Amino acid sequence: MNTFGNHFRLSTFGESHGTAVGGIVDGCPAGMELDIAMVKNELSRRRLGDSPEASPLLTTRHEEDHVEWLSGILDGHTLGTPIAFLVRNKDCRSEDYEAIQKLCRSGHADYTYQQKYGIRDPRGGGRASGRETVARVVAGAIAKQILHTKGIAVKAKNSDNWISCTVTGVAAGLGEPIFDRLNARLAYAMLSIPSAMSFAMGSTPTDWQLPTDEFPDAWVEHGSGNTLTATNHCGGVQGGISNGMPLQFHVGFHLPASHQGEMLCRDNDGALRPIHLGGRHDINHRYRLPVIVEAMTAITLVDFII
Amino acid sequence: MNTFGNHFRLSTFGESHGTAVGGIVDGCPAGMELDIAMVKNELSRRRLGDSPEASPLLTTRHEEDHVEWLSGILDGHTLGTPIAFLVRNKDCRSEDYEAIQKLCRSGHADYTYQQKYGIRDPRGGGRASGRETVARVVAGAIAKQILHTKGIAVKAKNSDNWISCTVTGVAAGLGEPIFDRLNARLAYAMLSIPSAMSFAMGSTPTDWQLPTDEFPDAWVEHGSGNTLTATNHCGGVQGGISNGMPLQFHVGFHLPASHQGEMLCRDNDGALRPIHLGGRHDINHRYRLPVIVEAMTAITLVDFII
Amino acid sequence: MNTFGNHFRLSTFGESHGTAVGGIVDGCPAGMELDIAMVKNELSRRRLGDSPEASPLLTTRHEEDHVEWLSGILDGHTLGTPIAFLVRNKDCRSEDYEAIQKLCRSGHADYTYQQKYGIRDPRGGGRASGRETVARVVAGAIAKQILHTKGIAVKAKNSDNWISCTVTGVAAGLGEPIFDRLNARLAYAMLSIPSAMSFAMGSTPTDWQLPTDEFPDAWVEHGSGNTLTATNHCGGVQGGISNGMPLQFHVGFHLPASHQGEMLCRDNDGALRPIHLGGRHDINHRYRLPVIVEAMTAITLVDFII
Amino acid sequence: MNTFGNHFRLSTFGESHGTAVGGIVDGCPAGMELDIAMVKNELSRRRLGDSPEASPLLTTRHEEDHVEWLSGILDGHTLGTPIAFLVRNKDCRSEDYEAIQKLCRSGHADYTYQQKYGIRDPRGGGRASGRETVARVVAGAIAKQILHTKGIAVKAKNSDNWISCTVTGVAAGLGEPIFDRLNARLAYAMLSIPSAMSFAMGSTPTDWQLPTDEFPDAWVEHGSGNTLTATNHCGGVQGGISNGMPLQFHVGFHLPASHQGEMLCRDNDGALRPIHLGGRHDINHRYRLPVIVEAMTAITLVDFII
Repeated sequence: MNTFGNHFRLSTFGESHGTAVGGIVDGCPAGMELDIAMVKNELSRRRLGDSPEASPLLTTRHEEDHVEWLSGILDGHTLGTPIAFLVRNKDCRSEDYEAIQKLCRSGHADYTYQQKYGIRDPRGGGRASGRETVARVVAGAIAKQILHTKGIAVKAKNSDNWISCTVTGVAAGLGEPIFDRLNARLAYAMLSIPSAMSFAMGSTPTDWQLPTDEFPDAWVEHGSGNTLTATNHCGGVQGGISNGMPLQFHVGFHLPASHQGEMLCRDNDGALRPIHLGGRHDINHRYRLPVIVEAMTAITLVDFII
Repeated sequence: MNTFGNHFRLSTFGESHGTAVGGIVDGCPAGMELDIAMVKNELSRRRLGDSPEASPLLTTRHEEDHVEWLSGILDGHTLGTPIAFLVRNKDCRSEDYEAIQKLCRSGHADYTYQQKYGIRDPRGGGRASGRETVARVVAGAIAKQILHTKGIAVKAKNSDNWISCTVTGVAAGLGEPIFDRLNARLAYAMLSIPSAMSFAMGSTPTDWQLPTDEFPDAWVEHGSGNTLTATNHCGGVQGGISNGMPLQFHVGFHLPASHQGEMLCRDNDGALRPIHLGGRHDINHRYRLPVIVEAMTAITLVDFII
Repeated sequence: MNTFGNHFRLSTFGESHGTAVGGIVDGCPAGMELDIAMVKNELSRRRLGDSPEASPLLTTRHEEDHVEWLSGILDGHTLGTPIAFLVRNKDCRSEDYEAIQKLCRSGHADYTYQQKYGIRDPRGGGRASGRETVARVVAGAIAKQILHTKGIAVKAKNSDNWISCTVTGVAAGLGEPIFDRLNARLAYAMLSIPSAMSFAMGSTPTDWQLPTDEFPDAWVEHGSGNTLTATNHCGGVQGGISNGMPLQFHVGFHLPASHQGEMLCRDNDGALRPIHLGGRHDINHRYRLPVIVEAMTAITLVDFII
Repeated sequence: MNTFGNHFRLSTFGESHGTAVGGIVDGCPAGMELDIAMVKNELSRRRLGDSPEASPLLTTRHEEDHVEWLSGILDGHTLGTPIAFLVRNKDCRSEDYEAIQKLCRSGHADYTYQQKYGIRDPRGGGRASGRETVARVVAGAIAKQILHTKGIAVKAKNSDNWISCTVTGVAAGLGEPIFDRLNARLAYAMLSIPSAMSFAMGSTPTDWQLPTDEFPDAWVEHGSGNTLTATNHCGGVQGGISNGMPLQFHVGFHLPASHQGEMLCRDNDGALRPIHLGGRHDINHRYRLPVIVEAMTAITLVDFII
């Protein structure tokens, strides 16, 4: 289903070229002052990426993502009721998509959606488009504001081929011991991001490969909180539960499939047909990911905390 | 909570040195003949590991894991009602555990359980012990039998520092597109295994790092099923949904913390105290993991299929 | 949470005098042609009631409830993705509600919301208003269209002090035997409707009080489907599972509290203060309920069928 | 599924004449001292009924229900981990059930189980037997002990044809406003009890039928807690949320179908065949219900409170 979380719950909707994308955030505490400007800023990070030097090379889709708040807020404060919101899609012109609706590109979800549903919205990837992450970023911004009141900060950045994420301020005791381990829920959240392929806990993506003698993080005498252990090879989670050290993990994404030039697409009979896809090459892709990683991390954490 | 899955659902219980470990499997189809000997064999794989040459070096805990079936089965056939089972713990002698109950080992869940619950069963790791995986293996064996009727086979093996898993026979269309992606659910399931630290989709653990031009798996002309694409860099999942190619993914586990010799343990005041832990060094650890990886994979898949 | 159902899932949002009310329907099958006019007609039934003679006495809130469809539909067909929709609230003028925001009416949810959230939207009942049922009726209309394709019809009508509901065309085997009994889920759904107070299975609301010898519905020789038994005292459910006879149950609603004249309201200090509430007396209330009962019934059934 | 609750969660298993019935309680707070004698006493109430004068007429099945605790408890205190337990079935003799396994009694779940699963355990009702409530009573006893620490008491008793239940000590603010209303969850819980047919909130089962002017419970000047209103027609719930007054509701059960003498049973071809069912007439049935009503009430409340 299109819902994430148990206590702090995000449900998203929307196709890339439909009327709108958006979502419902259920479980937000009542009486919190919502910083709308911060939400807007997070959406800009998603749209432009975190890299200033890449800004001039932005994708050609320069939409301003304007959030319409539908419910759950009165005079700038949350009511404890569901917060619904939407962001309209700008380029909803009725284009001629007959040509592509029976063709499946390689490296995309066209084929699997067609197999699963027997029908799909072929315009701009439809539901499978990265545009759905708009709703995650809005919900993530709300989640971050909740975490901020508890002294928890989430920060992701590009790092080699991984995108690394660190969370500071998490108290010991978060996470469920067997299936809903904090690391398992984080892996689940991260792999739910489009193009995510791998996940690793630890100070670095390969900490877990350390030999038996080096792996266990030694206690610091009378340490506590974020100085509990001398190293953080486990990434702040032991037995599925946070130990008070910073959470550290890494997510690997494949690069986006090129959209430029000719691509051999598959038709419904399995024959391959060359198609010239104008489109764009989203070279900014990797710089747009940190805010999405942060959003899903924040949503996951708030779900445990509430 | 201690439950995994939505439609095919496993709930587990039990501490390492309590009365028993076990579980309830809810959602198993009615009328299926259950192969009890196969379940027993899977438990032996868990206990002894897949490596014949390692057998003489087995852990000293030579218990025979005998399954008591409590419900859900009549004359060898499933009733469609919950299948409850238990495996008794053999070494339940009332030992003197006063000495260790206030000490937390490094590299274990002692500290986080203590922080979360304020109480824990210190004997043999309690709930955090790998012994809980007995229930997963029993449920996984049932899940595999369901998959077998649909022509699906799950096979995991040790491979360098990863444990690789391949699933053949999965039709296209499995998985939900946004949050409950097949890969996201698999990551969730894998990271829920004790000592799991990383997860990667693809033919190899590093396929996702391929450059833009090489990553997309090119269509095979008139291909279908497991010959749909020439390569399988995506590991059989596109847009969160299976495409009919074999599922391929990799799980990384840290090595078990050594139990031999002296270890500096943390007491409740944060002071470090040297403790001589007799115990054992489970050098067989990595060979015992494949059957657990297979079990969680099978449970995850059946949950989508039912 | 503000979500109903497991497989066919409705999430609703919206305050009575906020921007909009609406919802997301998740789990609707793909490729179904959606009859938008029928949805509109159901909303009219909710607004005007089923009683023609009562029409001239309609409530003064003559809004036309216009549905904006946001996602999940392409060229009139469902995509299998979430169907989001909203209905804007017409009277969203910024009224002066200072006077009433600290007062709690008797017979309403003002006090309990205040206790639970510490904040509430006092305008028109806020989230507790019957206006939230707009979203249920839209989702119910979609659910009815799904049921229609399976030959199932849901019909509710006023009957003495109860509102009776009958469902025809339900095959035997629907419902889960222990907790998620078909009757238990129906009771849950019905009691979730504002002002619902009681629920009873059976041909009449008092069938269950029949003596031991009369209660069991005797088999009809070679009967099947809706002629399986000579009577239907059990209301079509045995052991929590449908037996193929029509589902029959009854829901009791208290009458709406009068809004006219003076009412003693409670302020935050517990003192009583007389307030003149202009408002209206919704004498049409009982005629507006059948379509809501039908909607929740349809949603509950589709959730079991999908 | 065979699970009730979200945060305090009971999963049950077992057929009437299988090896055992039992369950897992997940979500019980850690560190609570468990009164085992009280659990035993609740089971006796279930077995013997609350009516002393009926005791000599007890059913002939005089089993002593002995609870085996499998996990989650150490030295009499809860660990916060799942509490699994079982009660063995005494009369598990391999009887000849060939004669009855293809026949469906009227007024029982035989037919619906057969239709749903295509297989069933015909011995003593199998899973559909009232024996499954053993697990509910054990979990309910644990739930009551949790409520007791919060000053909440649950008491049910027979009253005319209804079984009335009152809960004292519930603070205002319990329940979710839209679907998971406190009254909706209670209705769901009550209708999940075998032979339950109706549910009504209020001081009496017919309070909801009061006219508009009498129904609303008038505020008491400066009232609070259980003296908030002068009457309790709403049964302590407004807008789905508790208001601090005692919870009052009523559950109607049909009488058990007679087992004595000849009964016309339906075979798989729809033909009726007279069968002499020895069995027993459980005249004690109604006196055994209060402890089950209390158990499901307590489980429902703890699920909201935790």
